[in-house]
Amino acid sequence: MNRIEETIQRIDITSGKAIRARARARLEQLTMPLWALGKLMDLAERLAEMTRSLRPPVARRTIVVMAGDHGVAKEGTSAYPQEVTTQMVGNFVAGGAGINALARQAGAQVVVVDMGVCGDLQHLVREQKILSYTVGPGTANMTVGPAMSREQAIESITAGIDVAHKFADSTDLYGTGDMGIGNTTPSSAIVSLLCGAPVEKVTGRGTGLGDQQLLHKIKIIEKSLQANTPDPSDAVDVLAKVGGFEIGAIAGLILGAAGLGKPILIDGFISTAGALLAAHLAPSTKRYMISAHQSVEPGHRIALHHLGLHPLLDLELRLGEGTGCALAMHLVEAACRVLTEVATFEEAGVSEAN
Amino acid sequence: MNRIEETIQRIDITSGKAIRARARARLEQLTMPLWALGKLMDLAERLAEMTRSLRPPVARRTIVVMAGDHGVAKEGTSAYPQEVTTQMVGNFVAGGAGINALARQAGAQVVVVDMGVCGDLQHLVREQKILSYTVGPGTANMTVGPAMSREQAIESITAGIDVAHKFADSTDLYGTGDMGIGNTTPSSAIVSLLCGAPVEKVTGRGTGLGDQQLLHKIKIIEKSLQANTPDPSDAVDVLAKVGGFEIGAIAGLILGAAGLGKPILIDGFISTAGALLAAHLAPSTKRYMISAHQSVEPGHRIALHHLGLHPLLDLELRLGEGTGCALAMHLVEAACRVLTEVATFEEAGVSEAN
Repeated sequence: MNRIEETIQRIDITSGKAIRARARARLEQLTMPLWALGKLMDLAERLAEMTRSLRPPVARRTIVVMAGDHGVAKEGTSAYPQEVTTQMVGNFVAGGAGINALARQAGAQVVVVDMGVCGDLQHLVREQKILSYTVGPGTANMTVGPAMSREQAIESITAGIDVAHKFADSTDLYGTGDMGIGNTTPSSAIVSLLCGAPVEKVTGRGTGLGDQQLLHKIKIIEKSLQANTPDPSDAVDVLAKVGGFEIGAIAGLILGAAGLGKPILIDGFISTAGALLAAHLAPSTKRYMISAHQSVEPGHRIALHHLGLHPLLDLELRLGEGTGCALAMHLVEAACRVLTEVATFEEAGVSEAN
Repeated sequence: MNRIEETIQRIDITSGKAIRARARARLEQLTMPLWALGKLMDLAERLAEMTRSLRPPVARRTIVVMAGDHGVAKEGTSAYPQEVTTQMVGNFVAGGAGINALARQAGAQVVVVDMGVCGDLQHLVREQKILSYTVGPGTANMTVGPAMSREQAIESITAGIDVAHKFADSTDLYGTGDMGIGNTTPSSAIVSLLCGAPVEKVTGRGTGLGDQQLLHKIKIIEKSLQANTPDPSDAVDVLAKVGGFEIGAIAGLILGAAGLGKPILIDGFISTAGALLAAHLAPSTKRYMISAHQSVEPGHRIALHHLGLHPLLDLELRLGEGTGCALAMHLVEAACRVLTEVATFEEAGVSEAN
C-alpha cells in the first residue's frame, strides 16, 4: 500500500481555495446575467481551484483506456464473446474505434493499457502500441471466489498511479476509459457495495441484454456477493472480491491525477465504479473529478449522486472506452475560455442589472 | 410574402431519405454495442438526411446574432436597462462577449445583425462590423397595441432569409443567436400562443427576476395578449402583435437554411420562439433544426416538445447570443466523425454480439 498511501498524502485540498474565490468574483462580473452560463461557470470555478490558476491549463489531454478481462464473463452476463476485449484493443491501436474518432476531435492522445486481457497482446507491447501492466490473464470467476487476491488489487491500483505519473509531463487534463467484456457486472457489484444500494437497482443491460438475461445478471452478482462477502468499508477488499483489474487501474489513475493536482474526467459506469473506489480510499480525490456524462446504466446515476458529481453530458451513451470524456473535453475547455476570454462589465463598458 | 413563400416551396423533405437509411445501416454495424453512442447516432442519421450525404459537411460554421429592442421593456420586465442591447452589440464587435469566446473555440464566424436596436449603431454598419436590416427603432409597446405592423413582421422574416443566403457559400452549419433586452417577454407570448400553453407555464425569470417581478411579467404578457388578440393559426399575426424584430429574423434565418438544405442549430428560449414561428409557417423546417440545449426558461421545454426536438446539452444556460449553438457545434461534428471515422465489425475484424 505504500505507493497508494504516498499518493493520497500528496493530494492538495487547500491551496486552491483562494484562487477559486478570485475566479468566482471574476465570473460574477462577466458581461452577462449573473451565472448565465450555469454549469460551465460551476466548472470554471472548480478548475481554477484544481489547477490553482485563473488560467487553468487544459490543452494537453490524455485519455487512458484500461483493458482487462473478467472470469465472470463465462457466466453469460454479456452479449459479446470475451475475445472482443482483445479484438477491440487491436481496433484502438488501428484507430478505428469510437474513442479514436472522438479523441482525434478532442486533440487527446489515447493510451491503451493491458491490465489483464486474456488474448495475446505481446506484439502490440513490443511495438510500443500499448502499455502492459498485466496483473493476470483476466480475473477469476467471482461467483465461486474472489476475482483477484488483495495483492493483485493493490497492484492494479498502483499500476494506475504509475500510468498517471508516466504522462504527467505531457498532460494537463486526464480522461478515464475502459474496455473489458463483462465489466458492467463487477461495476454493479462495486456500486451496490459502496453506495449501499440493492443489486437490482444498480444493474443494467450493459451492451444490450434482454429481460431474462438481465435477471440472470442480477442473480450472478448476488451470488458473487454471497460467495465473497466483501467488506464495504474496505475499498481494496471490494476490488479484490468483486472487481476487475482495469477498474482498479482506473481508481489508481484518479488517485495519481489528484496527487499531481490535475483534473480528471470520469467516463461512464465502469469508470465511475473506479471513481467510487478512489473516493473511498481518499475522499479528497473528488475535488479533482469531473463527471463527463450520465450514461443509460441505472447504477451510474446512483454512483454519481453518491460522489456528489454532476455530469456534463447526457447523450444516452453506453460505450465506455473514454468516449464520454473525449466529448466532454470540449466543455472543459469552454469553461476555461469563459473564465479567461469574456470581458467584465467594467472592461466592456456595459451597464449592470438594476 | 413572395420571398417567404418561395423559400418554403424550395425546402426539400424527400431526397435525403435513402441516404438516411444508408447512414443508419452503417451506424448499426460500427464496432460497438448497437447504437451505443445514443443521441450522437440519432443526430448522425439526421445530418445524413439533411445534407443528403454520408459525409455530412459541417466544417464551415456561422452563428448569426439577431439584435433588436422591445417597446415592452419600459414596463419593467427585465433586470437590465434597454441601453444594454446597444452596449452588447459593441461587446460582440470587440470580441468580449460569451458568444465570441465560445465561437472562437467552435471555429464559427459570428455575424451580428441590427434588426432594430434603439441605440445608434451606424458607425459599426459603416465599418462593416455588423449588418443592418433595421425594421424600426425597437418594437412598439405591445401592452397597448401591436409590437409591429404585419408588413414589418414580413420584413423581419425576409431579412433572416436574406442573411441565410448571404452566407450560404461559406456556411455548412448555421447557428441562431439573439440579443435584445426584454426579449423573453415576447418569446413567452409567442410560445403561449403557438403551443396553446398558459402564460404562467411558459414565463420565466429571464435575466434574473425575483418572485414579484416574475408575477408582474406574467401580467404584462397577459395584458399584451388581451390588447392584441393575435390569431394563433397565423404565425405572421402572432409575430406582428406580440413578437420582436430579431425573433422574426431568427424565424427567417431558419426558413432560409432549410431552403438551402443546410442544418441549423437552434439556441435557447428566444431562438426556439423563432423556430416555432418558422415551423408554423413551414413544418418542413423542423427537419433541418437541431436543438442545441435545454435552457432554464420553463417555456423552453414546452416549445421543444411541441417541435419534437431533443436538446443536445443541458447546462443550465440562460444567456442566448447563440452560446448554446457554439457549444453544440462540437457535438454536431462528433456525430459526423462517428459516422465517417469509426470502423465496422467487418472492417475491424471484431466479433459481433451472440
